[in-house]
Amino acid sequence: MTDKIRIAIDMDEVIADTIDKFIELYKREHNTLIRLDEMTGKEFNELLPDDIRQTLKHYIHEPGFFRDIKVMEGSQEVVKALCDKYDVYIVSAAMEFPNSLIDKYDWLAEHFPFISWKNIIFCCNKIVNTQIMIDDRIRNFAGFNGRTLLYSSPHNHFVTGYERVNTWAEVAEKLL
Amino acid sequence: MTDKIRIAIDMDEVIADTIDKFIELYKREHNTLIRLDEMTGKEFNELLPDDIRQTLKHYIHEPGFFRDIKVMEGSQEVVKALCDKYDVYIVSAAMEFPNSLIDKYDWLAEHFPFISWKNIIFCCNKIVNTQIMIDDRIRNFAGFNGRTLLYSSPHNHFVTGYERVNTWAEVAEKLL
Repeated sequence: MTDKIRIAIDMDEVIADTIDKFIELYKREHNTLIRLDEMTGKEFNELLPDDIRQTLKHYIHEPGFFRDIKVMEGSQEVVKALCDKYDVYIVSAAMEFPNSLIDKYDWLAEHFPFISWKNIIFCCNKIVNTQIMIDDRIRNFAGFNGRTLLYSSPHNHFVTGYERVNTWAEVAEKLL
Repeated sequence: MTDKIRIAIDMDEVIADTIDKFIELYKREHNTLIRLDEMTGKEFNELLPDDIRQTLKHYIHEPGFFRDIKVMEGSQEVVKALCDKYDVYIVSAAMEFPNSLIDKYDWLAEHFPFISWKNIIFCCNKIVNTQIMIDDRIRNFAGFNGRTLLYSSPHNHFVTGYERVNTWAEVAEKLL
């Protein structure tokens, strides 16, 4: 471990474009088109027709679901630059989906090879001892005493009272 | 999350008898008998004959290796009792062995079903925000400001300067 300031960075909707995967999946498998601009203030499953809403739970528990998700725009470059200045941890609430553990590990190795496995944490409650946390879910800020950056995602659009970042370029502006 | 005092409990050599697995494996596969009383102050692989020492690394990376390890005596009863009084987290440095992630998850579900998946953390560096940590590796106490209980294991026999527990009965005496 180093003396650098530590940052905890979330995966889904922060460095991994999980909503894009949902949209593409429902277009392909269920001929159902959900548009990003309909999602403001809502969770993805709230937009699904009643008769297929329950399928989402099934999909995200499937082996492989988290393996081929697109990388969020700009995240690789900025996280790489952050690694020079900070001790960067990827902290994902993966434990709810046990089959995601190895997929997320492999995904990180492929897309963020500059993040050592020593700096990966899979958990649920994010009781991590870092000074900064970047996350799209304010529930992960509960009990955290450091600086929080709420990464904008449709579902958190109406959440107020938090320092916000809308893009990875904005993260770079604030932290680099 | 609750207001209870949080404890981080390690897996290997604390609730999981990984050395027993090593001993049985080398007896069976390599006809090599390593006795617990030879291990004092040593890591298991230091006791292996030169020509098979490298096999250990292979074994612990195999899928399934961590799935059928014996439970450490008394750990289930005491951890269950601790759960009433404390917010108990299982914190394992599993990330070094990515195939162990699902095995450790399933092992905990089988042997410690009273530990919610919400209270499992797989990592390497244990930068967890708990008040107590029970671990057999003092490197995991680095940077940790809470109370540490060093769980005795042959390899840490000569380590001094730490509050020590030799059995789960001793953990119960101290914490219950």
